[in-house]
Amino acid sequence: MVNLRRFFQPRKIAIIGASRNPNKVGHVIMKNVIDGRFIGEIVPVNPKADYILNRKVYPSILKVKDEIDLAIISVPSKFVLKTVEECNRKKIKDVLIVTAGFSEIGKVELEKKLRVYLDKNKMRCIGVNCLGVYDSHNNLDTLFLPRYRLRRPEPGPIAFVCQSGAVGSAVMDKATEEGHKFSKFISYGNATNIDESDIIDFLGNDEKTKVICLYVEGVDDGDKFFETVRRVSKNKPIIALKGGLTEEGMKSTVSHTGTLAGKKEVYLGVFNQTGVIRADSLEEMFTIASLIEKEIKFKGNKLQVITNGGGYGIVSTDNISEAKNIDMADLTAATKKTLRKIFPDTINIENPLDLLGDATTERYRLAIEACSNDKNVDGIFLIALYQTPLLTTDIVEVISEAHKSTKKPIIVVSTGGEFTEILSESLEENGLPVFEYPKEAVIAIDKIIWWEKKRKTL
Amino acid sequence: MVNLRRFFQPRKIAIIGASRNPNKVGHVIMKNVIDGRFIGEIVPVNPKADYILNRKVYPSILKVKDEIDLAIISVPSKFVLKTVEECNRKKIKDVLIVTAGFSEIGKVELEKKLRVYLDKNKMRCIGVNCLGVYDSHNNLDTLFLPRYRLRRPEPGPIAFVCQSGAVGSAVMDKATEEGHKFSKFISYGNATNIDESDIIDFLGNDEKTKVICLYVEGVDDGDKFFETVRRVSKNKPIIALKGGLTEEGMKSTVSHTGTLAGKKEVYLGVFNQTGVIRADSLEEMFTIASLIEKEIKFKGNKLQVITNGGGYGIVSTDNISEAKNIDMADLTAATKKTLRKIFPDTINIENPLDLLGDATTERYRLAIEACSNDKNVDGIFLIALYQTPLLTTDIVEVISEAHKSTKKPIIVVSTGGEFTEILSESLEENGLPVFEYPKEAVIAIDKIIWWEKKRKTL
Repeated sequence: MVNLRRFFQPRKIAIIGASRNPNKVGHVIMKNVIDGRFIGEIVPVNPKADYILNRKVYPSILKVKDEIDLAIISVPSKFVLKTVEECNRKKIKDVLIVTAGFSEIGKVELEKKLRVYLDKNKMRCIGVNCLGVYDSHNNLDTLFLPRYRLRRPEPGPIAFVCQSGAVGSAVMDKATEEGHKFSKFISYGNATNIDESDIIDFLGNDEKTKVICLYVEGVDDGDKFFETVRRVSKNKPIIALKGGLTEEGMKSTVSHTGTLAGKKEVYLGVFNQTGVIRADSLEEMFTIASLIEKEIKFKGNKLQVITNGGGYGIVSTDNISEAKNIDMADLTAATKKTLRKIFPDTINIENPLDLLGDATTERYRLAIEACSNDKNVDGIFLIALYQTPLLTTDIVEVISEAHKSTKKPIIVVSTGGEFTEILSESLEENGLPVFEYPKEAVIAIDKIIWWEKKRKTL
Repeated sequence: MVNLRRFFQPRKIAIIGASRNPNKVGHVIMKNVIDGRFIGEIVPVNPKADYILNRKVYPSILKVKDEIDLAIISVPSKFVLKTVEECNRKKIKDVLIVTAGFSEIGKVELEKKLRVYLDKNKMRCIGVNCLGVYDSHNNLDTLFLPRYRLRRPEPGPIAFVCQSGAVGSAVMDKATEEGHKFSKFISYGNATNIDESDIIDFLGNDEKTKVICLYVEGVDDGDKFFETVRRVSKNKPIIALKGGLTEEGMKSTVSHTGTLAGKKEVYLGVFNQTGVIRADSLEEMFTIASLIEKEIKFKGNKLQVITNGGGYGIVSTDNISEAKNIDMADLTAATKKTLRKIFPDTINIENPLDLLGDATTERYRLAIEACSNDKNVDGIFLIALYQTPLLTTDIVEVISEAHKSTKKPIIVVSTGGEFTEILSESLEENGLPVFEYPKEAVIAIDKIIWWEKKRKTL
């Protein structure tokens, strides 16, 4: 395994190409490292400046006396190799190169020379043509996008490995807004020396990371990828979206990250064999991840639907029936008898269990209790539509209490505006996964259950 | 065509079963009619009250002297038929019955008797077991859900016809939060007398309605439905989600709205033949509708992708390539030459056109201008990721100006948190459709273009 620790826990960082101009990448990176409250030391390097952001600037990395753990390089592409050579002379073996202008614009030879040098000198390089890394647990923010435009996530269990910087930043920005929490974000661009497999391998052993989300355009070393993701998938779910699956999409990957995308069937086959969960869209990645975020584990695949909206029960039943890895539960006769006794005649005791539009909070409590004690039920698909007047806000406590007292997962679906959002947020804070619509919830459950089964065969 | 005008533009409404108890449906309805600023007169009927919400109460509808256009009935199910008979004697031919407890709980005979009476006396009835109607243009709100839990939408072009009250209210609540605007919302429950076809027929002629969204569980009169939706689809798109498509989902429809759902293949076949756009999920309904909301019309199916995120370009290209009714445009040699001249070498002139992470607002302006003047381009799929620092906020004006000056549709995709949301809202206000992710945008375009083609064959 390639040790990437210094990329996330450096004590001293050199920023080579640091700039006084706020529009320059070398300035934004330095500002973000500072604003991100990096606990170590920052050493800016630039031959043409004395001070940047109140810090003394060195004219060359060779003039720095202290030991440096990580060099962030944002000099123009033609100076990158020379800068890397200097880093090597200074015994800096870990370099993060954000500079673009290599194979992605046809300069294959320039990148090859760089790769050969890095490999030969046993250096580790993230990049080139990348956005940088972000580590929420270690307060390290090397991303070159302004913090007011791209909100940084709070510490949490998701690691996001992203070949494309723009995909990474846009999707993480939105996911952060939605409340997802991240351990690390790594944009690795052209994968000149360290590739997706090295990063996944490292994250497989990272305690803070419980789930790995991956956006990948092309894999150069297929065997390494296969071996790595299979090994990591045994213990940690990897949720992947492959960019360039179609012939037309594939053509564009060359000019983006300099990689050839490869056949759809090959990728999907590899994902399937190695237990990698396939996301069908960008938005799906974190929807699936949210079940792991909330530490949801299914022991079986039979779901009981409880709802106060008949139509929602029906749509959910449709979705569950169409999913490959989940089934509708069949309540035991004993549970049915219990429920028949306590509920009015207008309620049909079946699956979905429709508590009707006049459902009270108490009705929910009784239904959840009875169903989660039923041996035929592996998880509860709980639809709570707060538009109906008799559902009091202490439904939050009722669901949260049930979540604490039962080992069976409760997955909540609530659709609505502001009133609904407030209650959903409270539930999320109490550890429950809440989805906005039945379909996305079913997809997430279906894929996580698939992985739980698959991992045992790896 | 059944004339439903009085359900939406009544001058005088009787509320039979009005109540002083704020927890009762008959109270909530009356309060909402008042709070909704109904411009006509409200006549509460209840034998046990003198005044409700400061209005004089009549002990029986027969005691009311004035002419009544519409009676809203929320008395217990066993009194419904008697109440309807009284309405008929009072010459009220339009009744909205929210009361539940008919065929959906097995009381098929009770509902049949009611139906026979309604039909025989040429009365029109929306319900039973429904949530009511809402008309934003006429300030009529008969829904029995509190307004603080269910936000009412602003006047706009979407009519939402919904067999299930819970689906209707939850989904409309969320859609309103997202900024969608509605002409009418009609929950029709068991369709005892007026069914989905009657409502769709009426909405087909409603000037305020530009698109009809439909959630349906079961259709009793298949021939009537086929004939109606085919006729209406010629001029107005109908976007439909069928609840109970799977065998297990179907079973539940009987106990929900008392209807038998019918085979999946039959429904999808009918939708396909009659030009009804099929929504695959609740959330998809309004995503598709938003293109009609913004009056987007495609003259052809070739899209040019413009992006500042390479990965987004690739993912969008994948999505477009997989869609059945859209293709990637191929810029003319002249356009390519123009763009080659004005853009730096690092930009590849192709489709997707990646303006790169250092894209400026001016670069977007030039790209949109050149592409929308290209005869090979029918629409622009514009990805704008605002996380990058050089994209200034006047991008909103640039895109809005282009939208005004070109007849070709511009579809915007922007993913992100607060900063992004503010810019997206501005664009929406200027008439542009904005989506959060490429896939949902592609699905909407694909389905609308399918309908544009299909309608010509109807």
